Formats: sequence, structure tokens, C-alpha cells
Amino acid sequence: MSVTEQMAVIKRGAVEILIEKELEEKLAKSLETGVPLKIKAGFDPTAPDLHLGHTVLIHKLRQFQRLGHEVNFLIGDFTGMIGDPTGKSETRKVLTREDVLKNAETYKEQVFKILDPARTKVVFNSEWLGKLDAGGMIGLASKYTVARMLERDDFHKRFTSQQPISIHEFLYPLIQGYDSVALHSDVELGGTDQKFNLLMGRELQREWGQSPQSILTMPLLEGLDGVNKMSKSLGNYIGISEPADEIFGKVMSISDDLMLRYYELLSDMPLAELDRLKAGLKDHSLHPMAAKKALGREIVSRFHGAGAGEAAEEHFVKRFKDNEIPDEMPQVSYSLADGAVLLARAMTEAGLTKSNGEGRRAIDQGGVKLNNEKVSDTNLELAAPGEYIVQIGRRRFARILIA
Amino acid sequence: MSVTEQMAVIKRGAVEILIEKELEEKLAKSLETGVPLKIKAGFDPTAPDLHLGHTVLIHKLRQFQRLGHEVNFLIGDFTGMIGDPTGKSETRKVLTREDVLKNAETYKEQVFKILDPARTKVVFNSEWLGKLDAGGMIGLASKYTVARMLERDDFHKRFTSQQPISIHEFLYPLIQGYDSVALHSDVELGGTDQKFNLLMGRELQREWGQSPQSILTMPLLEGLDGVNKMSKSLGNYIGISEPADEIFGKVMSISDDLMLRYYELLSDMPLAELDRLKAGLKDHSLHPMAAKKALGREIVSRFHGAGAGEAAEEHFVKRFKDNEIPDEMPQVSYSLADGAVLLARAMTEAGLTKSNGEGRRAIDQGGVKLNNEKVSDTNLELAAPGEYIVQIGRRRFARILIA
Repeated sequence: MSVTEQMAVIKRGAVEILIEKELEEKLAKSLETGVPLKIKAGFDPTAPDLHLGHTVLIHKLRQFQRLGHEVNFLIGDFTGMIGDPTGKSETRKVLTREDVLKNAETYKEQVFKILDPARTKVVFNSEWLGKLDAGGMIGLASKYTVARMLERDDFHKRFTSQQPISIHEFLYPLIQGYDSVALHSDVELGGTDQKFNLLMGRELQREWGQSPQSILTMPLLEGLDGVNKMSKSLGNYIGISEPADEIFGKVMSISDDLMLRYYELLSDMPLAELDRLKAGLKDHSLHPMAAKKALGREIVSRFHGAGAGEAAEEHFVKRFKDNEIPDEMPQVSYSLADGAVLLARAMTEAGLTKSNGEGRRAIDQGGVKLNNEKVSDTNLELAAPGEYIVQIGRRRFARILIA
Repeated sequence: MSVTEQMAVIKRGAVEILIEKELEEKLAKSLETGVPLKIKAGFDPTAPDLHLGHTVLIHKLRQFQRLGHEVNFLIGDFTGMIGDPTGKSETRKVLTREDVLKNAETYKEQVFKILDPARTKVVFNSEWLGKLDAGGMIGLASKYTVARMLERDDFHKRFTSQQPISIHEFLYPLIQGYDSVALHSDVELGGTDQKFNLLMGRELQREWGQSPQSILTMPLLEGLDGVNKMSKSLGNYIGISEPADEIFGKVMSISDDLMLRYYELLSDMPLAELDRLKAGLKDHSLHPMAAKKALGREIVSRFHGAGAGEAAEEHFVKRFKDNEIPDEMPQVSYSLADGAVLLARAMTEAGLTKSNGEGRRAIDQGGVKLNNEKVSDTNLELAAPGEYIVQIGRRRFARILIA
């Protein structure tokens, strides 16, 4: 692939590339010499439980691998093995060497569903940082000024709002930057929130006489709600270890706009094909539901193996049919000015039952649902304005409008 | 000595003691248990060339030794052996272990003229800091916040005036504090400019579960001019390796006020005796010159051995007599409105010579001094306003006033 073609792949979904021209030169040199670029991304040393949000970055690493480059999957175990020296976070326990290796295995299990093991080196920064002595740490700290460190967004906010910043927190970005020196990284990837730390790698590589790494930031993926960042705590996530049907169903639940975002950031669909898909949606030759199903199949198969996507789709369609609500159904309207509406009466007036008594019996037998929830009160009255769907048995529906 | 008596000695000349009550408790406990207190003071690892300004602190250490306590004379070689990691100071070379040991010998030669070797341990902080790894350094850095570090006077000034502060500069006060932890210091002494760093020792000792050291700050000694801090570069210093006559002469040149300051900070004269000396000066029963001579004798003997002070005084008195200028002498006055004044004429009119010709001959023979400098120009004219002392031979003087 030419440099231009590679750049198109690399830019897909990326927020920022610094500095593009440098990256192009590196790609050109790599093409010329046949030496792959070293792509670095850093990960927590704690046991991972990844969701799609995390895979945006991993997916981009995979794209670099497809272009022939090599990934340094860096596990930042050094500080994890020190523990949190502030002693403030009681839950953060010091990791042993065994913990770290065990967590690394858990990472591999998960990320090698995306990454190519043959082009991935899993590295631990304790390897070089464990050899650094206090003098080395002081030397590292001499490379950057307090004022510039305080330019980092979160530091700046905390400093100006008089929240304490421990001095060792200033050392962590330097350590991350030093990792790039130790790895001779050509490119480092990270979330947009990592930009400052990624740039630190450039600074320190220059200090060590290396050519500075290019950096590429990826966006934080929106969760199922399409608004907030995907996260465990918000519950708007798709975990990569969730059951196939669960993943497929969640993909089907997202909005059409969000689907395109996920295609861009999570799908292997080539750019040209993606353009055709977008065009199809626009001219209505492609139904959004079909595009969503294709995305669901791709994602499920990635994490559950070939064929798993198709199986999940089948289950979904069957379940969907069972629960299908018809577009057309009888409809009755009431005004609350005339008082609350007895459900049994509305059912009769909509033609679902012959009498209020029949309706009451149906409720009593557990055969009536209101807005998909079983009704148990035979004298239930609707006293709030709104649209209600009432269902008897599996196939008989009516719409009740109350104003 | 009782705690109260010890405190009187300790307080002599000190600027600040933090916290006095704690120090009293430590002294009481030491009296009770017979365990001496550990007194710490830190010194540069570079080759020392001490002047009296440096000895203020060393003198205070000596007083603690006289009270039975033990001095840790700390040579801060750790950072010296790293060198200046900023690479900005080109003149600061990295010290080797041999350099440090050689410099330590030079220190001993000089400070053991004051300190008692039996109660002095010379220690090097590389001993414990050399064992600290990067993790230990991070742990140390976690003990203090950026905002509090920026409260240090010089950091604050540089930060607000946008002068760069390298992050490693934040580590040095922490290292100095950690030295107190390693030494289990009970008291640390330093100049007033060291207060922040001395307090850091207290912080860190608390973190390490030690009882925090008391700190004692000593003033910066004024130089011979009585105004500026004594320093090599200002030329207002008395070096402790200067010849005896030089030291004595310089002591004799200081003002009466400065003499009392030097007595307080540099003399071993007991406080009661010093009070008598002050009273004697006040009621004129003691001539300031006599007090100054006594101070000169004490200081010279300290650095050149017993008897050296008396010998220096003798030389001084002899030299002084030779150069004595009488209080009473003939005087002539001129106004520049009448033109410049021929020196030979002024000499005649003051009665030193019988004619201008005789004056010119005296100048020609090298027998005339003007303001203590030999005159060679027989036609010298005084063209600037001021007071001139003219001298023919050894004993004949006149004062020439020109307005």
C-alpha cells in the first residue's frame, strides 16, 4: 500500500495526528527499507474487562498491523508494582510480578481477538524502569518544567481550583514519555485525554537524540445512549465478553447515527465499502436495520468466532417476531375531563372483548398486557394522559389514547 | 547544664527555633537518659574555602557539642555525584567518589579548627540515597504537593515571574528532608534561607513515624561593610585560611556595632561576660578598640593556634603606630573660585616648608605624600574640592581644605 493509501486507513476515525508530515515520511521510509514502524500503546496493569470503548484503540493498532507495522502492547506495570504512593486510594493494592503476568494473560485472551499475535510484542515497563535509580529519576525530572506540566488540562484545573496535586503525579507523564525512549517508538496511540502524555514522549525522545514519535489520538467512543462516553459505571456499554445475543441485541438498539460512528471506529469494512453503505442509507436503497444487522454480525463474530454473528442474528429475528407489535391496530380516544378510564371498558370499546366482564376475566387469567407489562388489577383505571398499547393473548392489540 | 541554661546558649544569635517547646523536651530527655541529641547540618560537596560567614553555623554546632550533643556533619554528595541534570551549568562538573573524599578532608582541616572531632560524624548522603530506586524517589515525591512546594520563597518568585523551574528542583528539598529521616535527626541547623528545606525534614520524619526534628536558623553574617552578607564576590569577607595579620587587621577595621554582632555570633565569650563587655562599652569604662583587639585575638588564635592572636595584635599595634596620623595639625583653606591650588604653595602656607621651591625639592626627593600616596609631580595642582592630608617625612602633616 502506498503512503497515501496507508494514511487514509490511519486517519479513519482519528481525532488528531501530530505531525502528519513526519508520519508520512516514516511510512515512506518503512516502505523503502522494509522495516516496520514501532507502534506503541500503553495499558493499565490491572485485570482488564474490556468493552467496545477500549477496542477503538486496539482496532487502530490492528489497522497498523494490517499495514505491516509492529505493535508494542505496553503494560504499565512499573507504577502498579509500586502501588499508589499517596496511600489515599485504599482499594489499589500493590501488584506482584505474578499478578501482572496473570493480568497480561487476561489481556492477551481479550485483545488477541482483534490483534495479530505475530505482529504484537507485549512489553512491561518495569523492564527498564526497574533499572532506573533515584539519580535517573532526577535526571528525567530535570527535562521538564513545573509551569509546562501545569499546562496539562487536569493539572491546570486542579491547581487553579486549589485541589492538591502530589509531586509524584508530575513524574508519571515523564515515565510514560521515557517508555517511548526505551521502546524507540515511531508512533504512539492514545485517547484524546492522553494527548499531553503522548507529546511528552516526543519531548523526551528529542532529549535522548531520537527522532520524536508521531502521535495519534482516537476519540472516546459514545455508549449506547449516543451521548455519554461508553463506560461500565454508566451502564451504556457493550462488554467484549458478553454473550453473543446480548452484544447483537445491544448493537441493534443504537440509533442510526451512532451506527455510522461504530462502523467508522469499530468495523473492518473497507472505507470504499463504507462509503457505499452510507450512500445506500441516504438514497433509501439500504434499510438502516439491515446495516445494523451487518454491524452486529461483524462485532459478534469478532468476539465469539466465525458464524456466531449469523446465529445471533437468527435468534434476534425470531425473538423480535415473537414480540412484534403490528403497525395497524384499533384505536380508542378519551379525555380525562370525563374522568379516569376503566381498562376493561376501553378494551370492549376497542373491540377486543365483547363486554367489560370478558375483559375482567381475561385480566384475571393473566392474559392482558398494558405497555408490555402484565396487568393483574381487574379494575385498573387509566388516569394519566398518554398513549397505551393493550394486548390480549399474543396477537390482539389496541391503542388507547388519553388526553 | 540545665535545660534553661542550655536553651540560653542555643538561642544566642539564633534567628528562629521551631518548635522551642519540643527542643526543651528533647534536651530534658537527653539529660535524663544521657543520650546526646543528634544535630544535623548539611554542606556542599564541593571543595570548601570557608570564611567567617560560614563559621556562624559551625560555631553553633560547636556550642551544641559543648552541651554534650553529637553533630552529623552531612556532606550532600549524592546530587554532586549526579551532576546538574539540567545541563545548564556547564561549570559544574560531576564529582567522583575520590573528589568527594578529598573535599571532605579539606572540610575537616577547616572545620575541626572549631568542631570537636570526637563529637562529630562526617556523613555522606550518597550512603542511603544511592540505595534509593526510582520507586523510592516516586514515593518520596508523593509526600508533598506542588502548591506547597511553590510556597518556597524562591520557587514562588520564579513561578510568578515566569522563570522556568525544572521539576527535579522540587525533588531536592525532599531529598534534604529524607536525609533527616535517614539520620534520625533531633535538630537541624541552617541559614535563614534554608528554613523551608529544614521544615521539610519535619514533614518527612512524621511520614516515617519519627518524632520531627527541631530546627534552628542562624542569620547570614554581615561582611566587613556591616551591610551586605559576607561573601567572596563582594570582597567583604574574612577567610579562615587568611594570614593571621590579615585577619586581625580586618577585624580591627569593622564598626563598633558590627563588632558586637561578631561577638554574638563568632565568639566563645560566655554570655555573662559579653554582657559585662557591652556594659563597659556603654559607660565608657572599656574602649571599643580594646574590645575589638580582644575579638581579633580570639578569632586569629582559633584559626592559627594559641598565641597567634597576641602576635598578630603586636604586629598590628607596631604598624599602626608607624602610620599614625596626629589628630592636631596645621590647616589651610582655599576656594576653587580662585583657581586650582599648587600643592607646593599650600605646603608653604601651612608652614611645612619655607618656600614653594623647598616644597618642590621635597616632592622631587620623594619625601611628600598626599593622602598617604607618594607625590611625584612637583607642579601638582589640587583642582577638586575635598579634604587632603599632606605629609613631609614621617612626622610633619598639614590638612588642606578645598571648597
